[in-house]
Amino acid sequence: MQLLERRDTNGVAHLRMNAPERLNALSDEMLAALQAQIDALSQDRDTRVVVISGAGKAFCAGHDLKQMQAGRQAEDGGKAYFADLFARCAKVMTGLQRLPQPVIAQVHGIATAAGCQMVASCDMAVAAQGTRFGVNGVNIGLFCSTPMVALSRNIGRKRAFEMLTTGQFLSDTEAEKLGLVNRIVAADQLDSATQELAETVASKLTAAVKIGKASFYDQLEMGLDDAYAFTGAAMVENMLWRDTDEGISAFLEKRKPDWA
Amino acid sequence: MQLLERRDTNGVAHLRMNAPERLNALSDEMLAALQAQIDALSQDRDTRVVVISGAGKAFCAGHDLKQMQAGRQAEDGGKAYFADLFARCAKVMTGLQRLPQPVIAQVHGIATAAGCQMVASCDMAVAAQGTRFGVNGVNIGLFCSTPMVALSRNIGRKRAFEMLTTGQFLSDTEAEKLGLVNRIVAADQLDSATQELAETVASKLTAAVKIGKASFYDQLEMGLDDAYAFTGAAMVENMLWRDTDEGISAFLEKRKPDWA
Amino acid sequence: MQLLERRDTNGVAHLRMNAPERLNALSDEMLAALQAQIDALSQDRDTRVVVISGAGKAFCAGHDLKQMQAGRQAEDGGKAYFADLFARCAKVMTGLQRLPQPVIAQVHGIATAAGCQMVASCDMAVAAQGTRFGVNGVNIGLFCSTPMVALSRNIGRKRAFEMLTTGQFLSDTEAEKLGLVNRIVAADQLDSATQELAETVASKLTAAVKIGKASFYDQLEMGLDDAYAFTGAAMVENMLWRDTDEGISAFLEKRKPDWA
Repeated sequence: MQLLERRDTNGVAHLRMNAPERLNALSDEMLAALQAQIDALSQDRDTRVVVISGAGKAFCAGHDLKQMQAGRQAEDGGKAYFADLFARCAKVMTGLQRLPQPVIAQVHGIATAAGCQMVASCDMAVAAQGTRFGVNGVNIGLFCSTPMVALSRNIGRKRAFEMLTTGQFLSDTEAEKLGLVNRIVAADQLDSATQELAETVASKLTAAVKIGKASFYDQLEMGLDDAYAFTGAAMVENMLWRDTDEGISAFLEKRKPDWA
Repeated sequence: MQLLERRDTNGVAHLRMNAPERLNALSDEMLAALQAQIDALSQDRDTRVVVISGAGKAFCAGHDLKQMQAGRQAEDGGKAYFADLFARCAKVMTGLQRLPQPVIAQVHGIATAAGCQMVASCDMAVAAQGTRFGVNGVNIGLFCSTPMVALSRNIGRKRAFEMLTTGQFLSDTEAEKLGLVNRIVAADQLDSATQELAETVASKLTAAVKIGKASFYDQLEMGLDDAYAFTGAAMVENMLWRDTDEGISAFLEKRKPDWA
Repeated sequence: MQLLERRDTNGVAHLRMNAPERLNALSDEMLAALQAQIDALSQDRDTRVVVISGAGKAFCAGHDLKQMQAGRQAEDGGKAYFADLFARCAKVMTGLQRLPQPVIAQVHGIATAAGCQMVASCDMAVAAQGTRFGVNGVNIGLFCSTPMVALSRNIGRKRAFEMLTTGQFLSDTEAEKLGLVNRIVAADQLDSATQELAETVASKLTAAVKIGKASFYDQLEMGLDDAYAFTGAAMVENMLWRDTDEGISAFLEKRKPDWA
């Protein structure tokens, strides 16, 4: 049994975190497995969409606290280990955004702390009814400072601040209303609804989705004029592809595009 | 019949895109007509609010694809033309934000691709029931990279990403909930509701609305301290106007201000 | 009777603006009293949460217009006074964000102009049913340019623009939906609901809440990589505290942490 399972169907790579007895904690090993898949997927031209889910009763409950506590045994009290750990975790989270493929979080049970950060770091998220979301490290004296980065870029600041300082959970419907997830579905339809969304995206011209995602987050950090210069250049490049010529011609001629 | 009609009532300039047979596509000619009006309005001291609408069954369906395809005949395959086209389009979109007057999109039918970008680029938007919004270029292999700039500054990132990569439409109520439009009204009240909003804004002290809009978008791109320094200077300038002195005095004396 | 009352209960400092006959206007005296409390609280290690409320029928109706008009008597027509006034006001508003303690606005009646800015500037807000929110200076010819800074960082830009240029109010439910307040409660439960939220936050490890708030707004202004480097360093520091070690151990051992 692998810690991070991968299954590929119709251009969609499913990564399933598989440490259910630890609520799929982001241990050193889990982070390494995720990073290895991110590295592989960044070079993978056959995969068009990535889905991340968790085995067992929860999506992911964040860092592996037992392992972190064990890190304190080092001579420096764990300082170097913790610095490396949070750097590795941030690399995984930003790596999801920087993958050429769209990444969908398929969420159920709970998504807490770095698990909630992962939901926020994915491009889209589908959640089962009843899923709860929290950045509740404050309850144990460890403020969710890094999850805050991703969360506060997904939802408004007053509710983000409340979650972080009260440790209280968002319900499924609140998460949808605030924009942390794209949609809520019945638990028994979570697989199929996520797959349907993934296949919808996978059915588009891969290069077009790729050039779009490649600009999405960067342009958000730019001023308006820079953002338009940057994305305008992407539009020109996109227009010059043979497949885009074909796509537009097919649309004008009311036929299906001939995309290999 | 003009491509872009203009009608002025009570300080409100109504621009109506008038190429209904092409769903008011943003052809070279339509962009030039819009830019000409933007240039004129930027110097126009009598116009207090601008409304943009579309004739026929849709607000605007984005770029003129036939014309774009024709651009491929050039020696460079259209590269220079496309670069110029997207620069001209971005100039119109940012020009709407930079007009001294507030701009209201009056939307019905569909607003897709650069048409949706235009809704997002206006300061406010009123939509008829049943209007649908999409950035669906991905369906024909042309990712809506420039519409993304405006859209992702109006709504949360997960829903924006979904629209861009699935090509799926937002309903009227979703657009309102997410903040892409200010309100939804019955189709037969679209004209009157938009005019009412426009006249409400037009009834305010013009210079005050102008100094406010002039700071709105710039301060959003600044850090907090810079934003306060910038808008604080605007407040001081605003306070020193005779009409503001009169406006405050009238309020304190419970009478109507004597504004010429 | 003090202009700004302070009452401390269970680590929560309650500041109550107390000029009900002037709807708790932010006069020079009120701003000075607020700044004095902000300065004191910034050094106060016993206070874990701050609550700001208003006596009488409103939370706060913004600047003291009579006093501002009197400022025009100066030789420069008030220019130096107004510049100083808006600088002092911005210092109070940003000071609320920069306090080490979370600040909760307890709002009722109306919160208008700089009063609405104060709600937007607090970390969280609880409002009584029926509270209305406005940035309606435009009605008297003085655009709410500085309140715009805080408001437009709390709610979406189209609704913010509408409030600023129409002067129209948000209802309680709209304010909650848009993210300007965290929750709405019955008027007779405003005190208890706010106190409950405050005590929930106050019950957490104070240093953890403090390190979290200290990063919250700064990381929002950073690019993603800088934000992760910044908050990652905070996580490492947080992990090295004895109380955090104890908090995590207690959690793993299913017992209450022994925090002095």
